[in-house]
Amino acid sequence: MHGLIGKLRAQPGQRAALAAILLEGTAAMPGCQSYVVAEDATDADVLWITEVWNSAADHEASLALPAVRAAITRGRPLIAGFESQVRTRPLGGPGLAAD
Amino acid sequence: MHGLIGKLRAQPGQRAALAAILLEGTAAMPGCQSYVVAEDATDADVLWITEVWNSAADHEASLALPAVRAAITRGRPLIAGFESQVRTRPLGGPGLAAD
Repeated sequence: MHGLIGKLRAQPGQRAALAAILLEGTAAMPGCQSYVVAEDATDADVLWITEVWNSAADHEASLALPAVRAAITRGRPLIAGFESQVRTRPLGGPGLAAD
Repeated sequence: MHGLIGKLRAQPGQRAALAAILLEGTAAMPGCQSYVVAEDATDADVLWITEVWNSAADHEASLALPAVRAAITRGRPLIAGFESQVRTRPLGGPGLAAD
């Protein structure tokens, strides 16, 4: 499996709008086991995106999906910056498909 | 929802053993929507644990479960340190129960 943990800073006051766009755009992505959009509990402009994919190729392919492209286009102006991105290899756990 | 993103450093060479203990101990936790154990893709001793709970109380209660207590007891000697812990409010996304 292929995983990503990303920290995203929204433009001031735009976090909720950005989160809604991300959730709408990522509802149906082949090969995606988990894509959780979460607010930072202490920083009002930060979102955390944690992703689990069957493979890096599935993640790469998702970027060409019309819904994902539309979300990127709509969301980009609301993003102040990507503060960190970690690449992982998920091993398993509750909430993932058994494999 | 209540979320946690934690970075855990294993004792050198002990990451796989620690991951196995964590996965075994967390297979059945009430109120847990997701508990993903993942290897860092570049640091050979680092695990990332990403958790989604229905509530902070569910997470708190899990620490008293016999399987979780056993995992903590067995895993602790294999942990070199907790390098970061972020608290989040997951909003949703594929892989979580609808709510």
